[in-house]
Parts: sequence; C-alpha cells; structure tokens
Amino acid sequence: MTTMGNNTYYVSYFIDELYQSGLDHVVITPGSRSTPLSMVVAHHPSIQDWIHFDERSAAFFALGIAKATQKPVALVCTSGTAAANYYPAIVEAYYSRVPLIVLTADRPQELRDNGAPQAIDQVKMYGDYVKHFHDMAVADATPSLLQYCRRQASRAFALANSNRKGPVQFNFPFRDPLTPDLSLDHLWGSVQTPYVSAVGGHEELLVNEAELIASELAGKQKGLIMCGELTSDEEARAVLELARQWNIPVLADPLSRLRQMGGLDGLIISTYDALLKQEAFQQSVEPDFVVRFGPMPVSKAYFQWMAKVAPSTHIVVDQQTGYREHSNIRTTMVYSDITAFVHQASQFKIEQDPEWTKQWIELDQRVQQTLTEMANESLTEGSVAHVLAESVADGETIFVGSSMPIRDIDTFFLPKNKQVKVLANRGANGIDGVISSAMGVAASGEHVTLLIGDLSLLHDFTSLLMAKKQQLALRIVVINNNGGGIFNFLPQYQHGHHFEKLFGTPFDAPIGDMVSSLDIPYQCVESNDEFTEKVNKPVDQLEVIEVQTEREDNFMWHQQIKSNIESLLDT
Amino acid sequence: MTTMGNNTYYVSYFIDELYQSGLDHVVITPGSRSTPLSMVVAHHPSIQDWIHFDERSAAFFALGIAKATQKPVALVCTSGTAAANYYPAIVEAYYSRVPLIVLTADRPQELRDNGAPQAIDQVKMYGDYVKHFHDMAVADATPSLLQYCRRQASRAFALANSNRKGPVQFNFPFRDPLTPDLSLDHLWGSVQTPYVSAVGGHEELLVNEAELIASELAGKQKGLIMCGELTSDEEARAVLELARQWNIPVLADPLSRLRQMGGLDGLIISTYDALLKQEAFQQSVEPDFVVRFGPMPVSKAYFQWMAKVAPSTHIVVDQQTGYREHSNIRTTMVYSDITAFVHQASQFKIEQDPEWTKQWIELDQRVQQTLTEMANESLTEGSVAHVLAESVADGETIFVGSSMPIRDIDTFFLPKNKQVKVLANRGANGIDGVISSAMGVAASGEHVTLLIGDLSLLHDFTSLLMAKKQQLALRIVVINNNGGGIFNFLPQYQHGHHFEKLFGTPFDAPIGDMVSSLDIPYQCVESNDEFTEKVNKPVDQLEVIEVQTEREDNFMWHQQIKSNIESLLDT
Repeated sequence: MTTMGNNTYYVSYFIDELYQSGLDHVVITPGSRSTPLSMVVAHHPSIQDWIHFDERSAAFFALGIAKATQKPVALVCTSGTAAANYYPAIVEAYYSRVPLIVLTADRPQELRDNGAPQAIDQVKMYGDYVKHFHDMAVADATPSLLQYCRRQASRAFALANSNRKGPVQFNFPFRDPLTPDLSLDHLWGSVQTPYVSAVGGHEELLVNEAELIASELAGKQKGLIMCGELTSDEEARAVLELARQWNIPVLADPLSRLRQMGGLDGLIISTYDALLKQEAFQQSVEPDFVVRFGPMPVSKAYFQWMAKVAPSTHIVVDQQTGYREHSNIRTTMVYSDITAFVHQASQFKIEQDPEWTKQWIELDQRVQQTLTEMANESLTEGSVAHVLAESVADGETIFVGSSMPIRDIDTFFLPKNKQVKVLANRGANGIDGVISSAMGVAASGEHVTLLIGDLSLLHDFTSLLMAKKQQLALRIVVINNNGGGIFNFLPQYQHGHHFEKLFGTPFDAPIGDMVSSLDIPYQCVESNDEFTEKVNKPVDQLEVIEVQTEREDNFMWHQQIKSNIESLLDT
Repeated sequence: MTTMGNNTYYVSYFIDELYQSGLDHVVITPGSRSTPLSMVVAHHPSIQDWIHFDERSAAFFALGIAKATQKPVALVCTSGTAAANYYPAIVEAYYSRVPLIVLTADRPQELRDNGAPQAIDQVKMYGDYVKHFHDMAVADATPSLLQYCRRQASRAFALANSNRKGPVQFNFPFRDPLTPDLSLDHLWGSVQTPYVSAVGGHEELLVNEAELIASELAGKQKGLIMCGELTSDEEARAVLELARQWNIPVLADPLSRLRQMGGLDGLIISTYDALLKQEAFQQSVEPDFVVRFGPMPVSKAYFQWMAKVAPSTHIVVDQQTGYREHSNIRTTMVYSDITAFVHQASQFKIEQDPEWTKQWIELDQRVQQTLTEMANESLTEGSVAHVLAESVADGETIFVGSSMPIRDIDTFFLPKNKQVKVLANRGANGIDGVISSAMGVAASGEHVTLLIGDLSLLHDFTSLLMAKKQQLALRIVVINNNGGGIFNFLPQYQHGHHFEKLFGTPFDAPIGDMVSSLDIPYQCVESNDEFTEKVNKPVDQLEVIEVQTEREDNFMWHQQIKSNIESLLDT
C-alpha cells in the first residue's frame, strides 16, 4: 500500500472498524472539511447514512436512532459552529446515557488559532459532556497510523457503548486535498476483530453485598417498587417477576415499559402521580421500604413525597455508575444489571403485608376510573394523551415531548396489555430537538407517534423537510396552546406581572398553514371521536394532527381532576 | 432592608447595575428557573426586553443587536439544554468579538449532579469561548451580597465591552421561591457609578514602536492597504485619510465600510478578488509592502496570493489583542487603535510609486465594467448582489449570509457614495442563526435587507415568527438554489461520487409556501428588472423575496466571469 490517498485509507479503516464493532447508522451534515468522512461513509457498502441540513437537529436525530436501538450512532460534521450546534443533543445524550460517536472534522494544527475562516477551537469543546475526547493525528496512511485508526475506532464504539453509555468525540484534522480516492483497492482492509470489545461491564452482586441488601429489607412490610425508565423488555420482565414474587405494588413510570405488560392483577400502579398530588394522601401513606429501578420518574409529586417520607430503607438499583437521586434521602445505591439483581433479590425473604398491597391496587383502580371518565368527557390535553394510549397499535412507539405532554402521558397512559414502546428525552428534559429525536426512532424502523407541544414543534420545525424526504412513518400530534402551558402550574402564574409575555409567550404560529406549506398531510381535530378516528389507523406515513387548546382551560381542567380525586379519597 | 425577597433585590441590583453601565437590551427565552431574572428585567423601567422561544435563535438575535450597536447585550435563559443552545452564537461572538452578557439560571449547588430534571452542569460549559465565567453565589439580600452583585454586574459589562470584546457568562443559582416580589420599594437602589468603567484600553504607539514601523516602510514603493471588517465609520474615515496621504490603493473588504465612502478617485479597489482569481495576475503583481487593518478579508484568492507573494513588509493593525493572520507569512502585528495608528502613520515618509497605484486603479475600473455588464445580462446570484448594492437606500443596512451570499457581495458590491452598512457574521462564518442576527440588527433600529441562501434560511426559519411579532423592518432576499451551492466551487465537485447527496443536499423546501404560511409578504422574482423594482423601495416591513437559481448554472456563470476577466487582462 502506498501513502497515496492518505486521507482515504485513514478514514476508510476508521469507518470500517466502527462498522465491524457494530455501527449501523451515521448522520451527516454537509460541509467541505468533513469530505473524507462523509464520502467514505456514503461509500461504505453496509452503513446506512442519513443527511440533514441542520446540525442541531441532526444530532437529536442520531440520538433518536441510538435511543431506539441502544447502540452507538455516529455523527459527522464539518468544522466551525457546525460542531457547536451538536451541544444540546450531546448534553441530552450524556444525561440520558445514549451512545453517540461524534466525528468532527477540523483543520490541522498549523491552521488553527490564526483567524482562518470557519476554524474554531474544537479541542474538548463539549467539556465534560463527552465521556471521552480524542484529537486524532492528522490523517496519513502509514502502517502505524492505520493501525492506530482501527484501534481508536473500536475504542470509540466500546467507550460510547459501555458501562454508562454516552457520547464520545473524535476530532479529525484533515489537510488538503480533502476528496478521498474511492477508486482505491481494499478500502475496508481485511475484516478484523474489534480491538476493544467492552470497557467495564455488569457484574452480579457479591455475596456480602446481597446479604447487606437482604438485611435492609428484613422485617419490612410496607414496600413499594418504583420503576423509572428502562431500556429493554428483558429488564422490564425481570422487574415484573420480582413484583410477582414479592406481591408488591410497582409504581410504574410511563417510560418503564411496565404499563404495557398487562396481567399481574393490578400490581402495576399508574396513578400514583394523581394520588400523590393529594396532600392528605401523601401524609397518610408511609412505606417502610422502596426499591427503585432506573432514574427518577417523571412525577414531581412522587419526588416531593419521597423527600418528605424518607423511607428507612431506600434502595436504588442503577445499571450504570452515576448518581441519579435528588431527593437527598438516605439511599443505598446498587450498581448492578437489573436482571442479575432480580435473580438474587427474588430469593430474599420479604414479609410484605398483603393488606398494604391490596389498598394500593384498589385505590389505583378507582383513580383510573375517574381519570377515564374525565378523559372521555371532552377534548382536552389530557384526553389526547388518553386516546393516544388507548388507540396506538400493537408494536408501535409513542415518543413524548417534554413539558406538558410527558406529564399528561404520565397521568393518562393507564396499564394495558399491548406491546407499545414509550420513549422520551429525559436526560435533560429539553424541548429542543424533539422532532428530530422522534425521527431518529422512526428511522430505526419503528412506527412512531410523537406527542409534542407547539413551542417544541417550532424549535425543530424545518426538520420536517427531512422527515418528508426520508418518507418516515411518523405521526405528529401537536397540542397547540399557543405558548408554554406548563408555566400555569408554577407559582409564577399566581403573580400577574409580565406572566403572559415572559412565560405564556404566544407566537401565534399558524401550524396548519406551516405544515401544509411543506405538503405534509395535516388535520386539525376538534373532538375525542374525531381524534380517535385519526389515531386508530396504524402509523404509515408522515402526518401532523393538531389539537388546539387554551392554556387557561387546561389549567382549570387539571385542577378539576385534582378536586375529583380529592372527593374520591374522601369517600 | 430585610432579607425578604432575597432573590428580588439580588437580581434587581444586578440588572440595574448593568443598566447603569450602559446596557439597553436583554433577550429572554421563557423558563421557570430564570424567573427572577426575566421578571426583573421585564419590570425595569428603561431596559428593552425581547422574548424569543428558541435559545439558539435568541442568542444570534442578541448578537445582531450587539453587532449593530457595538455595546453589550444580555441574554437570559433557564437551566438545562436551553443554555447549550447558546453555544453556536457564543462561538460566533467570541471570534467576531461581539460583546454578550450571558445570564444562565441554574439550580443551587445542593440540587446539582443528582439526576434532578433539567439540571445540567453549567459551570464553564462554554469552555474558553467566554472571556470570563463566574458562578454567582446563591441569591440572598445581605448587604455584602448586594454589594457583590453590583460589582459583578459592572464587571460583566466592562469585561464584555473591553479590549477584545466578547461574550461572558454569569451563572445564577436560584432557590425557591422563584417569583420575585416586584412590589418591594427601591428595587433599583440608588443610582451608582459603575464599579468598573473599563478593563484595558487603547494606547497610542510608543515612540520606538512607531519608529520601527516607519523603518519597515522606508524605501518601499509598491504598497497596498488591505482593509477587513471595521466596526465604526470613524475608523473607516481614518483609513481613507491614510490612503489619501500615501496615495495608495486600498483593497476594501465589503465589511470595511470603505466601498460606500465614494470620492478618492478610485483608490478604493473592490475587484481584487476577481483579479486575484487569475493565476497570471497573481504571478505578475508583487507588492513590497502591505498594511492590513482588521481581520482577514472574505476573499480566499487574496489569502492565497498573500501566502504565495509574502511581501517583505507585512503589517497587521488590529484594535484588540488576538492573532488573526492565517497565511503564515512574516507579519508585524500592531495592536493599536486604528485612528491613533493613522494619526502617527500619516507622518511616515512613504515613497509610493504613482505608476503602481495608477495601474491598480485602471484595472479596477475595467473589471468593474465587466462585472457590471455581466450582472446586467440576466438574473443570477451575482446580479442579485449587484442590484441589491445599487438599489439599497441611503442609511439602510445589508446583512449578508455566509457561504455564497458574502462572496457574491464581495464581487458585486462596487464602490459608491452612499451611507450603507454591510454586516455579516464572520467570526466563525456559520450559516446558523443568520436570520436571528439580522433581526437583532433590525431590532436596534436599522432598516435591514438580509441576503441569505436557502439552507441558512431553513436553519433559522421559525425565527420569522418573532420577526413578525416584533414588526421588524427586515427584507429577506433568499437565493434558493435548493442546497449548498458553494460546494460546486470545491474540488469535491469534480469527483462525481455521492456529490449531490452529500454536498448538494437538495431538500426541496417550498420556501414561498412556507413563508406565506406565516402570513408574511412573499414574492418570487424572475428578472433583474422585477428584482430592482422590489428592492428600490425603502425597507419598511418584514417581507421575503425569493430568487430561484440553479447551482450548476451559477457555477458555469462564475466560470464565465473568470474567463471574461482573463480576456480583459490579455488585452
């Protein structure tokens, strides 16, 4: 091999090693400096490339694919602010532990920090938000550099994918000429075993650790399992199995996958948020142990309750290192694979009181009934979540936007026996990049319904052009209350000053006209029946359904729910 | 004063001190954690607030105001990815030296790094891209903290505004309750002198420095002034004055303000880019000294020529510290106020050869004629820039997008006697946030025409909702060639593989329908006459004018220019 095409082999070996490690998708935005990366990726026989015009959206799109597949997805961008636009999605990926391999093209060292155009300092530009940063050597095709390339690529994949998944950045300085020579032979070299197959990993609890936990649970009678977001059905089945063994109520976050698993005679409790919003209920119910799987749930009421009640035994089982517990109560953090933990924990001796469990189940049933009745009354933000949960077809996915949509899904997605996945960006809970993230999930082959608010839609609106171009199966349900509806629920709302300008922020976006201008099917629905009819059909194309609501009405309606549940508890 | 309203006084004193220091504008995006900042700003009797829904766009909008006014503008956002969305504009501001005061709301320390929702690590999150980072104390209203607040605010303003202007970040941890008590008395305290009135400053050259420079110029006969972006008319007049004194050609970047100053009998050379694209011309012309003011110009041909010809005396006069010279030739960097420098330099003895100057002037006149003839032939991307330059009304501003628009303006904005400002984001040359930046300029009171490409428009499209809401005087001329036209000019174009997918990136955006969906006046023009008629009217409202072009035709047309100028040089 000559050193001709010095960018070419360097990059083709790197990309191929990513592929050998398991990489399937690369999201590219156009640029010149990144030519070696983008052209080689496009040329690779087995990697699926995706082209977007906006780096912010592109990164959220990659995050969506990686979230759905739980495998690293690579990003390729050119130098300059292009790379800075990745920042929001990288922050989200860091906190939600989604593996991304960020490949930023850069100028070589001799062209840095001298005012050259579109050259910014990209070294460690994402700070601590990437698990790993590496400034690659300037591309060349010497044997030692080609070996280094393969090693770095396999490391990139393993690091992104290993214990506590997350984003990694590899910065590629390229000298001219930038165009790779794709006519060269053996671009992909010989197939190799990845250099790094894993970093870290899950272990069963050691004997003394298991004994410690068992002793913490001994003699306790009023237990709860709280299950936050899970990323595999296997984990969800393990948690279910433990619940059955222990006969213990499971407060199931909408992202836990447990509300869709059916059976279990009501052990899966979905209405704890509505219940815990009742001051009286919070004060009357005191668990003596809580075992939580995964991150903190969506429910703020649950968090406040935990901080107040501080159960004497509070165990958090997290698959990966990190610390996700902000109620500041005494907590035993258990870092363990969930299935391995359940395998051991199901053998612990638990003396759970069957009355305690029965009361939770009965209350949950009654609140479910109240919520269902209220949702059936008329078209509201809550009824949209409810209808969506009831109607979504088996095997489909719901992606939920931040702010009000995830809270409405939390309240109105009641347990059912249906293989439906519910996903959301809960690492940093941003309203940015949500359409792109859902598009990424759709691009991974799933049929997705996105429930999103109007501000969040506006943030990422032009990404619909890409969704259209890629013919993604994505149904977007936008709740349009012309601004930030969630702020009505905060104390700021009580204080009249500047509220509408600062928090309501109505921008009067004509969403129907905007969507139609892109020649994307659009409909505005005005009743639950009409909405049900629309979403009862399987998702098979890109379309937008708008539901117009009033922020004030929505606030009053949620107050009504609270008061109805208060009455129910009084009886 | 009691410690009641502990967030309130803390923030109101900070904000008022910013105002006392000279702050006029604050751009706010909605959020809960930032409530103390946003409500106090909105309540301030003299500060102008602007509300946007998207932080990325909001930051570019603030950058536009600051660019136009050359004074710090503050940004207020809530915690989480909101702050990460500022990153692209912060990078741009850093490199283009635009003063921004970034106020990010945050959770207090006890709520950080524990999985709390929408809490990300905001400490030094912009790395070296802010001149200064300070993590504020948690708000309280003790006398010492209130004094600290005023000191920090005046420091924030001075740091952003001083020698080498740029962005600074102040991170504000707030505890509940977040709502400030705006009914309190003496919210703004007593009017104070700012604690810090300046940091650093401009000095005249010392005698021995001036002598050194004079000796470098002694005996030289073939000199040129190259003038990059200037930020005040005073500087531009100083450069003109020096040109007159020395009788020296001034290669004037479109952002130099010099092409609009008229007079001077042709000393202002605007066609050097077209000339220097001629290999033969580059080789035949060899200056023995070049004095450059401001950053490197837009022209890549000029840069390549400089790197090749490496004049024995190369002086770069920069108002602020930093290093903006990427041709790697021997350079004397002079850090000085431009007017002070000119005052001294106009007394240097220069033996400029009048023949040399005359030849530049004559060539420039002939190339101007050729360019004008070509621009008058038919509607092209170049003719749009030409018509725009000819038609824009006295006193108005043109904001130019990155990529092709700035290059076409470079070629076709010929010298004229008209008070027109030309602005662009040349710190990092991104195509992101361009609409918002131009909106910021319009918000500062200028009547702006924005020349922008289609991809750049899509990046920032929904910001038009804010432009509409604010009724800004902004005329947007979008050159729609359905993708990335600049890539045709790069070597990648010659290589057929994957070109259209990776670089052309057509997304078929129906721009007219999209704009009309927002109920914003829109027109597509199809001839120079029609376009002239549209832009001959003063800018008095928000409107979009689309010019549809073909990337391939545009490339061929630019090749034609090159060949016409080649013929002209041969005669």
